Amino acid sequence: MSKSRPADMTPDEFKQWGHQFIDWVGEYLAHPERLNVLSQIEPGDIRRQLPVLPPQQPESMSEVLKDLGNIIVPGLTHWNHPDFFAYFPNTGSGPGILGELVCAAFNVNGMVWRTAPAATELEEHVLGWLRDLIGLSKTFKGIVHDTASISTFHALVAARETIRERNVRDEGIGGPDAPRLRMYASEQAHSSVEKGAMAIGIGRRGLVKIPTDPEFRMDPAALDAAIRRDLDDGWRPFCVVATVGTTSTTSVDPVPAIADICEKYGLWLHVDAAYAGSAAIVPEFQYILDGCDRADSLVTNPHKWLLTPVDFSAFYCRRPDILRRAFSLTAEYLTTAEGEEVTNAMDYSLQLGRRFRALKFWMVIRYFGVDGLRDVIREHIRLGKHFASLVKLDNRFEIVAPVPFSSVCFRLRGGDAENQSLIDRVNATGKIFISHTRLNEKLTIHFTVGNLRTTEDHVDAAWQLIQGLVRNR
Amino acid sequence: MSKSRPADMTPDEFKQWGHQFIDWVGEYLAHPERLNVLSQIEPGDIRRQLPVLPPQQPESMSEVLKDLGNIIVPGLTHWNHPDFFAYFPNTGSGPGILGELVCAAFNVNGMVWRTAPAATELEEHVLGWLRDLIGLSKTFKGIVHDTASISTFHALVAARETIRERNVRDEGIGGPDAPRLRMYASEQAHSSVEKGAMAIGIGRRGLVKIPTDPEFRMDPAALDAAIRRDLDDGWRPFCVVATVGTTSTTSVDPVPAIADICEKYGLWLHVDAAYAGSAAIVPEFQYILDGCDRADSLVTNPHKWLLTPVDFSAFYCRRPDILRRAFSLTAEYLTTAEGEEVTNAMDYSLQLGRRFRALKFWMVIRYFGVDGLRDVIREHIRLGKHFASLVKLDNRFEIVAPVPFSSVCFRLRGGDAENQSLIDRVNATGKIFISHTRLNEKLTIHFTVGNLRTTEDHVDAAWQLIQGLVRNR
Repeated sequence: MSKSRPADMTPDEFKQWGHQFIDWVGEYLAHPERLNVLSQIEPGDIRRQLPVLPPQQPESMSEVLKDLGNIIVPGLTHWNHPDFFAYFPNTGSGPGILGELVCAAFNVNGMVWRTAPAATELEEHVLGWLRDLIGLSKTFKGIVHDTASISTFHALVAARETIRERNVRDEGIGGPDAPRLRMYASEQAHSSVEKGAMAIGIGRRGLVKIPTDPEFRMDPAALDAAIRRDLDDGWRPFCVVATVGTTSTTSVDPVPAIADICEKYGLWLHVDAAYAGSAAIVPEFQYILDGCDRADSLVTNPHKWLLTPVDFSAFYCRRPDILRRAFSLTAEYLTTAEGEEVTNAMDYSLQLGRRFRALKFWMVIRYFGVDGLRDVIREHIRLGKHFASLVKLDNRFEIVAPVPFSSVCFRLRGGDAENQSLIDRVNATGKIFISHTRLNEKLTIHFTVGNLRTTEDHVDAAWQLIQGLVRNR
Repeated sequence: MSKSRPADMTPDEFKQWGHQFIDWVGEYLAHPERLNVLSQIEPGDIRRQLPVLPPQQPESMSEVLKDLGNIIVPGLTHWNHPDFFAYFPNTGSGPGILGELVCAAFNVNGMVWRTAPAATELEEHVLGWLRDLIGLSKTFKGIVHDTASISTFHALVAARETIRERNVRDEGIGGPDAPRLRMYASEQAHSSVEKGAMAIGIGRRGLVKIPTDPEFRMDPAALDAAIRRDLDDGWRPFCVVATVGTTSTTSVDPVPAIADICEKYGLWLHVDAAYAGSAAIVPEFQYILDGCDRADSLVTNPHKWLLTPVDFSAFYCRRPDILRRAFSLTAEYLTTAEGEEVTNAMDYSLQLGRRFRALKFWMVIRYFGVDGLRDVIREHIRLGKHFASLVKLDNRFEIVAPVPFSSVCFRLRGGDAENQSLIDRVNATGKIFISHTRLNEKLTIHFTVGNLRTTEDHVDAAWQLIQGLVRNR
């Protein structure tokens, strides 16, 4: 045995460094107020501090810890921070962080059952728990992806596979006798739906954006009309994506009516509930998924609102046979003795590699309990509505969309320039981070409560900060 | 402020539990010999031990730790184990594990520069280090994906975008005047290439599998002939995937000759170097990427051979403008003030969500140093060749492919049944894990050295175990 071969940390060294890293993380989490939530650095500031060449010789982990504090932390926008109100905030909770630690130590690849049986079975099990909690029927099979973009992409590929007049898996969608495919989503659907259309090869013109009602929900009559028009024009409709909790206003598309239309025309119905789906674990909010049991697939992201570190997107499919037809392809070197009694995850996804993501979600559910998770959602929705009530008291502002969850869309009465300037001044403080959207062609401020450690005090202080930065007119 | 709202661990609780989890992981890593490397459980064994319903109330993390030891560990195949010789082994090294810990605590989403500047810049920086180490020119732009499957998928979508006679991004590849697209890879290419063809909508028939030479390398003359035949038949060739380190035999396709052909016909050249690309960081092995500088894209996976926990796939593209044309789509709510001076990762990938994966790779490089990483690769290749030399001494066996890296393909002289039976008996011991493939229509044993802690003693013991299980004839 060569004696000069490089070695990993010994178990004792791992424990020593591990304790130091844990303590460092504990301090990071303990003092968010010391940090600018939105990084105030300039482009290139990080790279300027990094050596041009990688180290030839080993460096001490204490140097790494120093650089984490001196270079990385000031260069990050701190998502795991109670004053992060932009986009959809998330939470890397304690049990979730420790789950990632253990996942990396196991370092398994659950591509097939036998390469990590517990990873496959725990994934199926916790996704079953979540499915039951949000009220979907047991006909849905769950699989974890990294992001909702990838979950939705898998839905679209499966939907494309249902076209009866063509064997898409083998023949593809091109060629002289190829149908011109069309799918539908509302104007408020997430950009990943359009990216998915591009990725699967139907192009941007293959997606029809359906108008929404004044509350930014898809108009089912307009959907029906668009499909009929396309059929008349020789298009081949194959899929509708409904959204439960749109990115801008968290609006909920009328899924029951959309499901009727999908049934009428024989179209795949995919539901993007990436953000709001988590709220359905709360009994009094379960109605938001009404009609979703008739969908063919649905995605919701526990890494958004269920305290699980990114990445963890839960994808459910009621027609796993179609998903499998679209994605299964077993190379000889991947054949295993286990038959149909096990799930080989690779048969249902484009990726072969699959880390043990279920571990962190399992640990989060156990640490907080279902009641705890429900209370977190309830509290965030309460805080969102509380924030909206504060905005309503100030006549300089207007709320421009309903507040069904914890997101508030509001704006200064006035032009885009004034709103942009306010947003810029707020974010330049580094104290809170808010984002924007555009509604009815007007620049709008988007404020969402979603980090576990955000309290009413944080929300009140955020509002005071915003109010204080309005310029007198 | 509601007092009953659920709370995360306090920083002190996080530290206490964190220390316990670190110690647990340290013990897990310290005693691999106590574990069956290939799990010996039966399908359903894990789920039977899990409660049907999720816990309503919080549970103690000490219960979780107990279940990790009692349920999860016996139910895993232990990839992070020195006796794992199947597929391509990997390593969750100490610094890599701690990197994932910190990543989960930051929990940032680097979808655009401003949402995590340090994540974007560190990713660009360490991928620049790796690009230089493997000898690619600086014209390649790097981006991290979860798996090589997804990296290759991005390459194929970009390649599809180069078809001049069509605006694929907008119009897709379907419809009556659509070209019939064809891409090419060797018979030994990874299944993700064919899955990619299915995903992008050209179907399995859109991929032509080119025969290989006796050493399982793509035959360039056959490639050229296939392209010419397809052109005559009205197909539209657009892409070739070459492999550096095939999955079965780690063969290296003749990239320079393939690059010539791609230039001749104007085809995108993607190189799948998922496993073997890492070896190019060693100066004496850098030649394996000869010709790859002429490729349009290349993927190599540090989570395979560079001690980085899954997932970490490095994707390089020499035509980032095309990648961007294929994938960029900026929703209003994602616009930011920073202009072309920064990279917004979402413009180059299907996924919007992006965790801070560069952190772990950065920590691995710093902990081991470039010299250390090179020595690991050298040692694994030495051990692979050492294993091959042992096999050669035993006349009952034959080696059926060259051993350019650390993978050895060999078989008992005899039929498939005897080889299958030997593999089954070896793996049933739980002591080592080996996999299989099929070469020249014969079942073949696949043995790869690739875990950091694998020593010559482990390799010798593995060979003795295999020899000892050969049935006398």
